[in-house]
Amino acid sequence: MVRTVVVHDEELMRSALVQLLRSEGTLEVSSMSPGAGPPDQDALPTDVWVMDGDCLWGPGQAHDEPFRSRCGDRLVVLTTAKRPGILRRAFDGGALGLVDKNAPAHRLITAVHTVAKGQRFLDQTLTVALLEGAEMPLTTRELSVLSLASQGAPMAEIAARLHLSRGTVRNYMATAIRKVGARNRVDAIRILQSAGWT
Amino acid sequence: MVRTVVVHDEELMRSALVQLLRSEGTLEVSSMSPGAGPPDQDALPTDVWVMDGDCLWGPGQAHDEPFRSRCGDRLVVLTTAKRPGILRRAFDGGALGLVDKNAPAHRLITAVHTVAKGQRFLDQTLTVALLEGAEMPLTTRELSVLSLASQGAPMAEIAARLHLSRGTVRNYMATAIRKVGARNRVDAIRILQSAGWT
Repeated sequence: MVRTVVVHDEELMRSALVQLLRSEGTLEVSSMSPGAGPPDQDALPTDVWVMDGDCLWGPGQAHDEPFRSRCGDRLVVLTTAKRPGILRRAFDGGALGLVDKNAPAHRLITAVHTVAKGQRFLDQTLTVALLEGAEMPLTTRELSVLSLASQGAPMAEIAARLHLSRGTVRNYMATAIRKVGARNRVDAIRILQSAGWT
Repeated sequence: MVRTVVVHDEELMRSALVQLLRSEGTLEVSSMSPGAGPPDQDALPTDVWVMDGDCLWGPGQAHDEPFRSRCGDRLVVLTTAKRPGILRRAFDGGALGLVDKNAPAHRLITAVHTVAKGQRFLDQTLTVALLEGAEMPLTTRELSVLSLASQGAPMAEIAARLHLSRGTVRNYMATAIRKVGARNRVDAIRILQSAGWT
């Protein structure tokens, strides 16, 4: 039996994924909320983690050390080709399994068994998106500026929080808009969010 | 047996919800993609529809006539208290069941049985959000302006598409920002989107 833990922030979807994985009879499945933090040292060892990509704890959190040090690379992330940012972060974070949310259920079960053996599982439908989203187009600074703007912060506040002048913030913003091929600030935020970069 | 159809746009989550509903043994469960459009006239009659609120076909689509005329009010919508816009649209659209995605699985099964009898099922955790989101704060025009802006359209394009002058668009925008208590345009879009109004 492969010991599998499902991580999802909505209890109903968590239970549904647990039922799906149990249906085959070869997996021993439990679940946890991402908010519960890294699992207890005393918890039973887990062979494979299954996590909804939208529940990764914000940008870069797939790399979150306390969690990663416990779960290692035996991680299957569920996402779609429309979210190259999440795909890329999961891949760069070392997740062995990437499964398309639009795939049939047996693909997820195959992915869990593959990752349990320490092998990589990558849905073909996600490969192109992963290659296209090869690199985050923005620098850390440009991303910070857009990320604060997306939370509704005005220019002056962004400048103050990043210890920059307003002119510099305006320059970062203009460069970011151009780089992602957006028509304006709102458009740039929309593009980054839908790709899963912020 | 209550004949239940799950509607979700991601196949994996659709299969997972089907497994969850089947686990109790009193429901006959099938599923469809929202993209598949309203069900065939020749399809077997359905007692209850279960639908993810995030998969409603955009603003107002819970009211979509071809679908509504087939599914009637025997509809259970899954959402969270953080999405008063979706809650409100589902409620106003006549959905009898509103289930919190953070509820335990047996709540959903109870909801399906309750709605199958033509009775209302409303998760307590959603009641407050439903009352708070009592009314959409914006007029149709103000919402159209913000909705186009959220897709990245510049002011001139919004004016052209709505057959308004730029000054009028600016006025609608300013009123909308004030009404939702936002700090600026990006903030107003963020507030409306996270509440599920656009």
